[in-house]
Amino acid sequence: MAESVRVALLGCGTVGTEVVRLLHEQAHDLRARVGAPIELVGIAVRRPNRVREGVPQELITTDALGLVKRDDVDVVIEVVGGIEPARTWLVEALRSGKSVITGNKALLAEDGGSLHDAAAEGGADLYYEAAVAGAIPLLRPLRESLHGDRLTQVTGIVNGTTNFILSAMDSTGAGYSEALDEATALGYAEPDPTADVEGFDAAAKAAILASLAFHTRVRAADVYREGITEVSAADVASAKAMGCIIKLLCIASRTKDGGVSVRVHPAMIPRSHPLASVGDAFNAVFIEAEAAGQLMFYGRGAGGAPSASAVLGDLVAVARNRLTGARSSSESAYADLPVRPMGEVWTRYHVSLDVADKAGVLASVAGVFARHDVSIATVNQSGRGDDASLVIVTHAAKDADLAATVAELRSLDFVRSIASVLRVEGD
Amino acid sequence: MAESVRVALLGCGTVGTEVVRLLHEQAHDLRARVGAPIELVGIAVRRPNRVREGVPQELITTDALGLVKRDDVDVVIEVVGGIEPARTWLVEALRSGKSVITGNKALLAEDGGSLHDAAAEGGADLYYEAAVAGAIPLLRPLRESLHGDRLTQVTGIVNGTTNFILSAMDSTGAGYSEALDEATALGYAEPDPTADVEGFDAAAKAAILASLAFHTRVRAADVYREGITEVSAADVASAKAMGCIIKLLCIASRTKDGGVSVRVHPAMIPRSHPLASVGDAFNAVFIEAEAAGQLMFYGRGAGGAPSASAVLGDLVAVARNRLTGARSSSESAYADLPVRPMGEVWTRYHVSLDVADKAGVLASVAGVFARHDVSIATVNQSGRGDDASLVIVTHAAKDADLAATVAELRSLDFVRSIASVLRVEGD
Repeated sequence: MAESVRVALLGCGTVGTEVVRLLHEQAHDLRARVGAPIELVGIAVRRPNRVREGVPQELITTDALGLVKRDDVDVVIEVVGGIEPARTWLVEALRSGKSVITGNKALLAEDGGSLHDAAAEGGADLYYEAAVAGAIPLLRPLRESLHGDRLTQVTGIVNGTTNFILSAMDSTGAGYSEALDEATALGYAEPDPTADVEGFDAAAKAAILASLAFHTRVRAADVYREGITEVSAADVASAKAMGCIIKLLCIASRTKDGGVSVRVHPAMIPRSHPLASVGDAFNAVFIEAEAAGQLMFYGRGAGGAPSASAVLGDLVAVARNRLTGARSSSESAYADLPVRPMGEVWTRYHVSLDVADKAGVLASVAGVFARHDVSIATVNQSGRGDDASLVIVTHAAKDADLAATVAELRSLDFVRSIASVLRVEGD
Repeated sequence: MAESVRVALLGCGTVGTEVVRLLHEQAHDLRARVGAPIELVGIAVRRPNRVREGVPQELITTDALGLVKRDDVDVVIEVVGGIEPARTWLVEALRSGKSVITGNKALLAEDGGSLHDAAAEGGADLYYEAAVAGAIPLLRPLRESLHGDRLTQVTGIVNGTTNFILSAMDSTGAGYSEALDEATALGYAEPDPTADVEGFDAAAKAAILASLAFHTRVRAADVYREGITEVSAADVASAKAMGCIIKLLCIASRTKDGGVSVRVHPAMIPRSHPLASVGDAFNAVFIEAEAAGQLMFYGRGAGGAPSASAVLGDLVAVARNRLTGARSSSESAYADLPVRPMGEVWTRYHVSLDVADKAGVLASVAGVFARHDVSIATVNQSGRGDDASLVIVTHAAKDADLAATVAELRSLDFVRSIASVLRVEGD
């Protein structure tokens, strides 16, 4: 049996505690799978006196950087989150040849390049399976198994909080606030839910997924982002009437002109789509590839144990690499495709509006769409007294043209209100 | 740029032709991802004069063993299938240090040990992503990403032909023969469908999945196997009435006594189960792990392009390994768990029977279950003239006890007929 692989853990909250527990509980299996024992040599935390069940107090330190620099550390696991000081620690570790495992999606999406560059400089492994879709083995298949194929689109439900809220709105007819309150009460939403409900969390994950799928560096700032706070009970009802359901999707796709587009926004998808039945706080990622066709990965996106499972899977890989002198595939960003702005992306809109029920209104509305080069796929008109309700679904058009169409509709006298505007995804 | 990685292809049918096409079409991307060009140096076929569009005639040979032995071959891709001569070729390749990529599930399930041993001897890579669930990146996640977790059960729909037939029976109410005819007409079933409909194909895949999931060598002969030829329109209707659907499942699970059980048989699962909506010829594998919880992988299980996608994903990995001098994780069979026979596996049964409608019948029927230590979960009795229909779902019990219960029921005077007996899976 080879000498042990020595691990430093940065952060010991929900995920970190679970990592410590599993390292202990599965020590026998891990040793057999790695070919050497895994030894936890230090745990850096901010509050050393907090009680953490099952965590050996003698390993606790508050000096994270000192721990990272220790000569007897082979692998650094970071589950702290945030840009700094995590970036400083991880760049230091990677440059000195220590393998890094992190679930830090914000850092990867903001400045993954620095980590990849440091990994290349130090000849070290950088794994981050836990950063997107928690327990689901997704990133390594993307960066390894699907390398013989050409991906065309990645569509994901990657934020459990918003999926829980939208699922509740769909099943009970509740409004957004009510569903958010339920999610908060059940612990699915943070006291400050901004990062989730405004789509920041999903946008960071979208950047990571797009980078891997298209061999191109994509940062969080490149991702178009809309959250779910404007999704109304009326929107949910409109979607139901269309045989659809509303999901917060992250979508990374190749554009017709050889670029990529990356976006996060709520959208209607048909209930027959594989993503439609992904309920509660589950995550799923739907992949379309030229040769493989359609693939989907489904599982728990967050939580201590699921994230720790992803971290330990990475740990077995980097530990084996250290013992055999191998190194995982490094960042693949050779394609370097341009990221297109949202306005140039081709999407479809569902627009539901209340109009005055008089002659010529439908012709005028249709004229607005036509002036913006937007082709209408279906129209449903139903009268109710002086008003008529129009539900229009478009063919694919440039998002900027669709947005301009809606803006012009809003300005028209005979348009009493626009009840719902939603993008439509999934054929 | 490093020198090229030289590939020999054994077999040039549906999958092989697609491999040749993709190697040509994606040469630029493959070179970038591998770090060196991939060069196809020979293609061994049985019928050299057959026209194969896009396949360079000058690479064709009928001497597969000679091709495998060539000094300038680095990687051997085998898409011929069958035990021999494929085993001889691949053992030869691996022993001499050549990496092997194969989709040969029959060989892997019958004698994967010989291949793994030869790979260890030659220090070579053995990859076989295409062998199970075609394009779905499943085996590498099982053998790598999930190594930090403890799997409890793997439940798969891994045969597209039978899933197409059962989906058709469910949606149209057709009988088995009629649905098989449709599958044959559409090319989803072979002229001789035995390997699919009798569960041999699924059993081979079950053995491969179980070996990876439980770090234990499992062979096709260890797998309990029932096909779908006995599934009737009445069974399908019974399942519907229960809110279930019938699927041919492969199930590999840990048993309570520390062993594993591996089986293939039709079973009822609730329509709310993620596997229930896997229709047509799609495949999906549902994994339960202690830390990760529930995971599902979904996609196309067969076909030229999907299988070729899996082969090329493997090719990028082994080619990178050759260039960096690394080697993939070898066979992990350290756990060496005992495989339990079907009779000892705990399952649940759904039994639907017609009985004479007279006093004491229900008591007698219930007595039969009790005598075999089988606990009844639900009973539904409905009268129709002199007869009554009884639908019974049991709690989990030993499969042998359940089978003995049904056998005794069959022998009773007042049991007119047993309309349907099916196992029930998924809570």
